[in-house]
Amino acid sequence: MNMFLSVEEFNRRRERIVDKLEGLDLQGLCLFSPHQIFYLSGFSFIATERLISMLMTAEGKSILLVPILEREHAEERKGVIDELITYPEYPGERHPMKYLKDVVKKAGLKGKKIGVDSNGYPGGYGYIGPKLSEVVDTEVIEVKNLIEEMMRVKSAEEIKLIRESVKWGNLAHSLLQEYTKPGLSETDISIRASYKASLAMIKALGPSYKLTRADIIGLPAFAAFRGQVGARTAIPHAITTNATIERGDILITGAGADIGGYGSELERTMIVGQPTEKQKKFFNLMLEAQNVAMEMIRPGNKCSDVDRAVREVFEKEGLKEYWRHHTGHSLGIRMHEAPFFDIGDNTIIEPGMVFSVEPGIYIPGFAGFRHSDTVVVTESGIEMLTYYPRELDSLVID
Amino acid sequence: MNMFLSVEEFNRRRERIVDKLEGLDLQGLCLFSPHQIFYLSGFSFIATERLISMLMTAEGKSILLVPILEREHAEERKGVIDELITYPEYPGERHPMKYLKDVVKKAGLKGKKIGVDSNGYPGGYGYIGPKLSEVVDTEVIEVKNLIEEMMRVKSAEEIKLIRESVKWGNLAHSLLQEYTKPGLSETDISIRASYKASLAMIKALGPSYKLTRADIIGLPAFAAFRGQVGARTAIPHAITTNATIERGDILITGAGADIGGYGSELERTMIVGQPTEKQKKFFNLMLEAQNVAMEMIRPGNKCSDVDRAVREVFEKEGLKEYWRHHTGHSLGIRMHEAPFFDIGDNTIIEPGMVFSVEPGIYIPGFAGFRHSDTVVVTESGIEMLTYYPRELDSLVID
Repeated sequence: MNMFLSVEEFNRRRERIVDKLEGLDLQGLCLFSPHQIFYLSGFSFIATERLISMLMTAEGKSILLVPILEREHAEERKGVIDELITYPEYPGERHPMKYLKDVVKKAGLKGKKIGVDSNGYPGGYGYIGPKLSEVVDTEVIEVKNLIEEMMRVKSAEEIKLIRESVKWGNLAHSLLQEYTKPGLSETDISIRASYKASLAMIKALGPSYKLTRADIIGLPAFAAFRGQVGARTAIPHAITTNATIERGDILITGAGADIGGYGSELERTMIVGQPTEKQKKFFNLMLEAQNVAMEMIRPGNKCSDVDRAVREVFEKEGLKEYWRHHTGHSLGIRMHEAPFFDIGDNTIIEPGMVFSVEPGIYIPGFAGFRHSDTVVVTESGIEMLTYYPRELDSLVID
Repeated sequence: MNMFLSVEEFNRRRERIVDKLEGLDLQGLCLFSPHQIFYLSGFSFIATERLISMLMTAEGKSILLVPILEREHAEERKGVIDELITYPEYPGERHPMKYLKDVVKKAGLKGKKIGVDSNGYPGGYGYIGPKLSEVVDTEVIEVKNLIEEMMRVKSAEEIKLIRESVKWGNLAHSLLQEYTKPGLSETDISIRASYKASLAMIKALGPSYKLTRADIIGLPAFAAFRGQVGARTAIPHAITTNATIERGDILITGAGADIGGYGSELERTMIVGQPTEKQKKFFNLMLEAQNVAMEMIRPGNKCSDVDRAVREVFEKEGLKEYWRHHTGHSLGIRMHEAPFFDIGDNTIIEPGMVFSVEPGIYIPGFAGFRHSDTVVVTESGIEMLTYYPRELDSLVID
C-alpha cells in the first residue's frame, strides 16, 4: 500500500518555490535542514557531521550534494532530484563547503542572489565549517521561514498520510491502555504496546511500507508515558523514568505513527483506579478548556483567539498558577511546527492547517491533566482526526 | 545504582569554562544547543519551538532560561544551576529573546563580550527570532567549538558511564542475534531485542536509573538493523524498511544503551546461513581493515594516521570503489562527535578519547561489511570497551 507522497506532490512544491523565489528576486535556494530537504525532495537521512545540502535554482532545477556514503541512498530519489553530486567525506582533504561552492557556481549562481535556511551547515555532531556566504561569490540571504511557511497548509496528500498516522497511533494507544496495570513499569508497557502496534501496522500495510523518520530502532507506531506517571504528570515535558504504575496514579500518554514522514499526536490523561473528586474536578476543567479551544478553531479566526479563549477558562476557574504552555501547535513532518495556538501568534487560521489541541493543567506535587487531539481545519471549523475517546469513563483503568 | 555524573563533575567543567573564558577574554558564555547545555548542567529536555538558553559568567555563575513549562523539571538541576529564570511561552506576548536580553544584562554583561555556540536559537520547530547580537548591548563572538573541544577527552566518570552502556548494548545485541531467524521482519526482531534488553537493564539497575536522552519511547537499551538487511547493507546509512530476513542475507546491526546521557556503539556484520566464499572474502578484508585501524590508535599518533592506514588497505586490496566513509568518530553525549578518524583530521590522539572504529566495505547490489567497536585510548594504545565477538564463526546464524 503506497504510503508516501507522489512525485507530482514534490513537483507542485517545486513550482511553488519557483514562484516564491521570483517574488523575492532570488535566483536560487540552498537548504541545510534535514526536514526542509525532506520536504522538497523526500530524501530522509541520518544527520551527522557530514554536510548535506540541496540547491534549487529559480528555474526549478534541484541539485543534492551528499557525502559518497549517501550516494546509493540518495539515488533512490531520482525523479525528484535532478542532479546528485557527491563529495568524499567530512572533514576530508577538501572541506565539503568547497564542494558546495562548486555546486553553486556550476548552477550558474555566481554573482547572483540566493536564499538559505541557515548560512552554513549548523552541524552539531563535531562539524565545523565556514558560513556559506564566506565561500561563495553569491549574495546569501537568510529565508529560514520560506519553506516553513509553505508547510503551514497541508495538501490532500499530506492530510491522507496524517490520517493514516492517526489510525496506528490509535491502535498503539489502545494497546497501551489495555496493558496498563498497577505494578508494571512504564517502560514495559510502552515498549510492549509500541512493539505490538508496529508489528500489526507493518503487516497491515505490507512490504511497501517503509519507515521514513531516521530513527535508530525503527518504530513505525508508538505509545508511551514519557515519564508522565503519578505526580510527574505535573511536568509537561518529563522524560521516561521507568516509574512503576501505582493505583491512584494519573498518567499522561502520547501516541503516534510515522507514515511517509508524517506524524500525528494523540495524548490522553488516564487514571488508575476510581478517580477522586479532586482528580475528576481537574480532569473536567481540562476537558472544558479543550472543548473551548476546539470551538474557536475555524478559518478567519486568529491562532491567538484560540489560546485567548483557553486562557479565559484558566482565569475564570482560578487555574492561572497551573498554566504552563500554549494551547497547541501545527504538526506534520515535524512534531511541532508553526503556527501556534498562542496568544502571541496572530496567524489567520486556514483550511488545511493541522493542529494539536492540548491545553494542560499542571499542579506541582499532585498531577497534570492534558489531552492532545489532532485536528484539521475545514471550510467551516474542524474535523477531528483523532477519534480516541476523550471522556473520563473511557480512561479509567480499574 | 547511581548512573549519572556527580555534581563535582559539573563543577570541574564549570571551572574549565572559567579558565577558557579568561583565556579568550570573554566575560560570559551563552549556549543554545541542547547537548551543550546538557554537558554543562545535566539538564536534558525535549527541544521544541521554545528557546532554552544557559548563560555562564566568567565568575562561574550559571543561569538557565527556560519556558515556564520546564520550571519544575529544571529545578531538579539545582546545585548545578545557580539561578533559574522563566519566561511564559513562545511566541508569547514578549519574545523569549527579550527575556534573554534581560538575563544577560542582569548578569552584568552589558557592554562586555560573550561567547555563544550559535548567534541565536537555531530553532527548527517553527521558532523564528532575532540573532542574540541584535538584541543585547554586548559583543557576541561565535565559539561553537569551545564546549566541543572540552568534550573530546572523557573523564573517568564519563568513561564509567560509557562502559556501562557497552554492557547493555552487548545484551541487546546478543538478544538480537538470538532472535534473528529467516522469515522474521527486521522490525519484529529489533523491537523485541530492544524491549527485552531494556527491561533487564532497568530491573538490574533499579529505580534510580532514569533515561536521559529525550526519546519519546524511552528505550534504555536497543539493538536494530536500521534497514541494513541483504543488499541494502551496501547503503551505510539505510533506514528501517521492515525487510524480511532471508537465508543468505548479510545483516549489519547496531546496538547501544543510554546511561546518564552517554552512549556506546556496537555494530556487527552477521550472515544468515553458511557464508559463501565471496561473503567470507569481504568479511575478512573488513576485519583486516579494522585490525589495522586499532593498531594505529595510540597517544601521539594523529587521527588522520588511522584513516590513512585503513585507506592503504583499501588501495592494496583493490577496494577503493567500495569505500564510503572514514574510519570512525568520537562519541559520548552525541552519537558522533569530533575528532574523526579521517584523513583530514590531524588531531593528536590523547588518552581518554573514546572512538568508534568502523571501516566499512560496500558493494552496491551485493552487500556491505562493517563492524563498529567502541574503544578508549589509554597511555599506550587502546582498551576495547566493546567485547562482543568479532570473528565470522560467532556471527553466522544457522
